[in-house]
Amino acid sequence: MRAPELNEEGALVEGRNAVLELLRSGRPVDKVFLASGQGGRMGDIFALAKARGIPVQECDRRKLDAMSVTHAHQGVMAQAAAHEYASLDDLFAAAAATGEAPLFVVLDGIEDPHNLGAVIRSAETAGAHGVIIPKRRAAGLTAVAARASAGAVEHIGVHKATNLAATVDELKARGVWVFGAEAGGNVSLYDADFQGACAIVIGSEGAGLSRIVREKCDFIVSIPMRGKVNSLNASNAAAVLLYEAVRRRTRGE
Amino acid sequence: MRAPELNEEGALVEGRNAVLELLRSGRPVDKVFLASGQGGRMGDIFALAKARGIPVQECDRRKLDAMSVTHAHQGVMAQAAAHEYASLDDLFAAAAATGEAPLFVVLDGIEDPHNLGAVIRSAETAGAHGVIIPKRRAAGLTAVAARASAGAVEHIGVHKATNLAATVDELKARGVWVFGAEAGGNVSLYDADFQGACAIVIGSEGAGLSRIVREKCDFIVSIPMRGKVNSLNASNAAAVLLYEAVRRRTRGE
Repeated sequence: MRAPELNEEGALVEGRNAVLELLRSGRPVDKVFLASGQGGRMGDIFALAKARGIPVQECDRRKLDAMSVTHAHQGVMAQAAAHEYASLDDLFAAAAATGEAPLFVVLDGIEDPHNLGAVIRSAETAGAHGVIIPKRRAAGLTAVAARASAGAVEHIGVHKATNLAATVDELKARGVWVFGAEAGGNVSLYDADFQGACAIVIGSEGAGLSRIVREKCDFIVSIPMRGKVNSLNASNAAAVLLYEAVRRRTRGE
Repeated sequence: MRAPELNEEGALVEGRNAVLELLRSGRPVDKVFLASGQGGRMGDIFALAKARGIPVQECDRRKLDAMSVTHAHQGVMAQAAAHEYASLDDLFAAAAATGEAPLFVVLDGIEDPHNLGAVIRSAETAGAHGVIIPKRRAAGLTAVAARASAGAVEHIGVHKATNLAATVDELKARGVWVFGAEAGGNVSLYDADFQGACAIVIGSEGAGLSRIVREKCDFIVSIPMRGKVNSLNASNAAAVLLYEAVRRRTRGE
């Protein structure tokens, strides 16, 4: 149904057989899109996706038509990931290998793959040890995100959390201080102690931090807003926080 | 030729009469696009654009076809600016009004309007007093850039320099220290003295600083690169430098 060369990592895979083959291959898949009203016809795809923990999004057939390149999607498409995801242990191992206290970035629902790619790039250049994204309602490691990372995706692990709030709990249990970035917080950017093991949590472009994640943060750190606009672009906020962490870690107080 | 409601600020204006009307209106225009091989038919548009100092870019008719919404561009289109540009004096006046030493951002050829908008947003939130962009080979204040600025374009002046190198000379003559951002510079991010009047110069996404602008910089300041990727996204770099300037200005050494 589709040319094999389109079936690359990061590509949109179209059509029933191609999606089945992708799911069976074990390669990383971000999401399966299924046209509404397919009935039982896609039961095997549903079952395979569920077994691998891959979200299935039902959507209007017109959405698939708009996304389709081959115009032969047969009501099903899948977004292959541009890169393998890392486990949380991989991220801790990357920190241990440098002998530094872990420095992670947690993205609480970033939807723009350009923003995701820019954050991965800044995290890598700042010497952070990993980026954590949620499985649902967020940009994954698509080809666009990988390109926007300027190759950084090859050098820093990205972990996809099934349940972001549970992952934040796990970080805390493993000794990581969790700093949520939001206006009106209880710590200013320049007073935050980023010298220990820490994770910087950035909210989504529109809604900011989700309530459940905000409540789990040890600190809410705020970037000073000296103008009339009251927030930064998500990737710019991440870069500012990361490089303040670099300053604290390399220059001390 | 085109509906008046499309003829708004920030819009692409299409067709010979609409472009002529826009040029005669005196409203801000970023650029005129002209299909190659128009001969003398567009002489009045050429003359008006030249008189107002607006760049005219000759391009393949297929480029216009791809940009066109109305499919009735008649070989000529113009990009109206989404906002009025500020003069260099306006920028110095904005600094004087705050009683602070001027803090400007100079963008040496940023081509992505999302990056331009993000920089304008970060500059405004950091309390900078203006953004300077070149007239040619760079994104202007389009509707996309204005939207990406999250409204910041209403609160900070953007100056469009006819000749960026000459504007850098003028900044220096008016007592502003010029810091070019580039890898391998002679000052580290955390050692740069941003407390006096200063301008931070960010290079283009692909090529970095232009040679002529780099040679005019008083300092080349480098963001520490602790990973394998050797540069940040342009708007992320601007945000990191701006917020280090905020730290130096509000916290001293």
